[in-house]
Amino acid sequence: MRIRELADFAAKVNIAFPTAEEYGGLSGFYDWGIRGSQLKKNLKDLWWKYFVLRKDFVVGLDGSIITHPRVWEASGHVEEFHDPVTRCKRCGRTYRVDHLIKEVKGIDVEGKPLEELAQLLKDIPCPACGGELEPPRYFNLMFETTVGPFGGMKAYLRPETAQVIFADFPRLYLGNRKRLPFAVAQMGKAYRNEISPRNFLFRLREFEQMEIEFFFDPQRDSSPFYDDVKDYEVLTLTIEDQERGNPGEIRRVSEVVGDYPGREWMVYWIVESLRFLELAGVDKGRLRIRQQLPDERAHYSMDTWDVEFHFDDLGWKEIEGIAHRSDYDLSRHYQYSRSDKYKVKREDGSEFVPWVIEPSWGVERVILAILYSSFRRDEKRTWLSLKPWIAPVQVAVFPLVSKDGLPKKAREVRDLLLRRFVVEYDEKGSIGKRYRRHDEIGTPFAVTVDHQTLEDNTVTVRERDSMAQERVRIEDLLDYLSERIEW
Amino acid sequence: MRIRELADFAAKVNIAFPTAEEYGGLSGFYDWGIRGSQLKKNLKDLWWKYFVLRKDFVVGLDGSIITHPRVWEASGHVEEFHDPVTRCKRCGRTYRVDHLIKEVKGIDVEGKPLEELAQLLKDIPCPACGGELEPPRYFNLMFETTVGPFGGMKAYLRPETAQVIFADFPRLYLGNRKRLPFAVAQMGKAYRNEISPRNFLFRLREFEQMEIEFFFDPQRDSSPFYDDVKDYEVLTLTIEDQERGNPGEIRRVSEVVGDYPGREWMVYWIVESLRFLELAGVDKGRLRIRQQLPDERAHYSMDTWDVEFHFDDLGWKEIEGIAHRSDYDLSRHYQYSRSDKYKVKREDGSEFVPWVIEPSWGVERVILAILYSSFRRDEKRTWLSLKPWIAPVQVAVFPLVSKDGLPKKAREVRDLLLRRFVVEYDEKGSIGKRYRRHDEIGTPFAVTVDHQTLEDNTVTVRERDSMAQERVRIEDLLDYLSERIEW
Repeated sequence: MRIRELADFAAKVNIAFPTAEEYGGLSGFYDWGIRGSQLKKNLKDLWWKYFVLRKDFVVGLDGSIITHPRVWEASGHVEEFHDPVTRCKRCGRTYRVDHLIKEVKGIDVEGKPLEELAQLLKDIPCPACGGELEPPRYFNLMFETTVGPFGGMKAYLRPETAQVIFADFPRLYLGNRKRLPFAVAQMGKAYRNEISPRNFLFRLREFEQMEIEFFFDPQRDSSPFYDDVKDYEVLTLTIEDQERGNPGEIRRVSEVVGDYPGREWMVYWIVESLRFLELAGVDKGRLRIRQQLPDERAHYSMDTWDVEFHFDDLGWKEIEGIAHRSDYDLSRHYQYSRSDKYKVKREDGSEFVPWVIEPSWGVERVILAILYSSFRRDEKRTWLSLKPWIAPVQVAVFPLVSKDGLPKKAREVRDLLLRRFVVEYDEKGSIGKRYRRHDEIGTPFAVTVDHQTLEDNTVTVRERDSMAQERVRIEDLLDYLSERIEW
Repeated sequence: MRIRELADFAAKVNIAFPTAEEYGGLSGFYDWGIRGSQLKKNLKDLWWKYFVLRKDFVVGLDGSIITHPRVWEASGHVEEFHDPVTRCKRCGRTYRVDHLIKEVKGIDVEGKPLEELAQLLKDIPCPACGGELEPPRYFNLMFETTVGPFGGMKAYLRPETAQVIFADFPRLYLGNRKRLPFAVAQMGKAYRNEISPRNFLFRLREFEQMEIEFFFDPQRDSSPFYDDVKDYEVLTLTIEDQERGNPGEIRRVSEVVGDYPGREWMVYWIVESLRFLELAGVDKGRLRIRQQLPDERAHYSMDTWDVEFHFDDLGWKEIEGIAHRSDYDLSRHYQYSRSDKYKVKREDGSEFVPWVIEPSWGVERVILAILYSSFRRDEKRTWLSLKPWIAPVQVAVFPLVSKDGLPKKAREVRDLLLRRFVVEYDEKGSIGKRYRRHDEIGTPFAVTVDHQTLEDNTVTVRERDSMAQERVRIEDLLDYLSERIEW
């Protein structure tokens, strides 16, 4: 399936569509509609449940999007968070220079200095009008704004949620009663002023992240959960594989992660990430983990693994990254804020700045992977084979016909079920049409009230993928569905 | 209790604290910590459950924060969403002019023209340094930013979530299969570049809203739920009361809402709002509804009621507003976008633009009201009497002592419970200290594993408010707590 088709489908069934469509939209900004708002909420809730509520050593944070500019100086974003850009002198169109060189000359220039890009760009004309392009320059991807009247104070919209966790470390460490290791999880919006947003939800200017910062002492870095993750296997692509041109192999994660402080936890977070993605409905057959090459890795990272998903038309694309950040972040905040609170004391009196491992998901990218994984079509119907805990409607309730007292009875069933599930009542159109409508948005179960219901208080429950129907007593319905829907 | 005390308490127990504290903070921006992130999530989840999942005619939206600038021209915000501001010529401090005049001269100038304010401001010196103040001017409260490189396009951070719903009406109406009435609910961030943020979480620059836009046909405006709301009573303060200097009276909401199209729905939304606030733990004894006076009401509103909460030191303050907006919003978008899709066809072929009633909550203000309502202190302890479905930790699990195999058993109990609740395990410090710690953050139930547990598989469950303890069998524990915690 191509990503354009998915975008059309998503708009049609009210998952996501360009913001302010009636005004022509705004490139890189999408709204999540009737189905999409619930789908996104379900995914985020599942993540929160999986990582925060079910793990005793993970706590939450919900920080500000506009933050103090010094935070972004400390993080290095003010100085280095930029892409090379050029503009056509004739038509005024703008291009991201590394993408343009890659497309025209097939050369990968990620991370190369501006002079080198200038050389390579010299003989490339504007792809749209053939005009001459300006020399490349850097464009900082942070959105700027001003806080307060009369010129106020320059501030940035966060380009990642992570730094808010780092900046707040002192409060969070205190709130966790000074115990290490522990992790802080945060979900929320982030902003990158991309030069050319593209591929539907894949490269947005406003998007959501789910991030975890795991803080540990490099001298006490063993994980009590290592036994539970060390045998997990997945398609892996190491640096060595890439250098030798190997397509990768199915291996244990614990086999490919290198030997450095925090190694067991690195394996833990990679495996738990993959388990979570599977639970959310991402097809494991389309997943791999790829080790970033030394020159794509951020300079402070000891090791970074991307979780990549295979899109039919886009190829392998990152939907999550797990980075070993050593003590870079807290050291920088310690340095820029001059606050001792970023340091931690061991029982023996020695001091250190905690090290960090960071799994970071792009919410929209994960949803794209889920939609790709669950989209089905045959001669008769189109459906989304979503996990029941992710589906935007979990139970559809229909009266077989809109007469003979069936709607009243069906509404009673709806009222019973909506105390626990996301339920939709529908009496419009033939029963077949109603099934199709709910297949399209991935509703896993449809409950139909028919004439027999009035006699014996049973209903039919139809399962989406198999289309199999089962007769269930209304008094057993909550339990029957709970078993199948709740995680 | 004073709001400053609450702010200190909230920081101490990791509910909320200024963002980037180690950098001196940023006025009007707060982060929600370990307890606060869960508390806020619980409130938003409850709202979503109450209004979206349990009401068949309410659907969800999760729209973009940065939106097309034309949306804000259509809404009137570009032209009119401003406050009068002045600056001291000597010390450079800035003031909101209406607040300053109110404080110094006691005159209420809300909505008065700039010339009038200039006259009143003339003889007021800078309260800080005594210097001369500049003439007042308007300052638009929308945060501005730029989308794209090379100067890009000016855009705004939404000052309310509402307009995103209005702009998307065509998609939402289609997604609701062209049925009226229906409502769209949205939660999320909004931004107002306040001149002087103040009162802890009360006046922020970045905050969250929970908003519902209810769309209806003024010719078919009766509500099937009217019987369920018409007898609901609350302290009311009408325009007439205010003009006569009455303090207000307990009356039926249905008695005080005027006679206009949508009247039954207006009553419905006011009553449902109040029921929701009570469910969330806002003390009804501190609530009233106050009808906005004609000159404070937005010009397009036929009638607006504020839900006000009585703070000990701030007095009555708005935490929610319910506005009758007639057809203003969709008419404006129809006019500015020139899209016919904002119009709706009746079965008889006549066309109209739907009317709107809007209940709009400030998330942080509701949380302030909840904290005010639940804060308790006596000689022995400080505690938050939070509703169990709102509390940031729902069940604390303790081994009585950290030996004799009790921690292992207690962790098993924790693992059992954390599949359903927000659970925290704690073995550090005396049992009394652990109770106090959880009282402070409002944990409604504490489960203690003691030596008897190892013999008969029972635990003690201690309830926060009464401090009463009950012996419960572990096999009954999930049901016992579910009954008391889940809504």
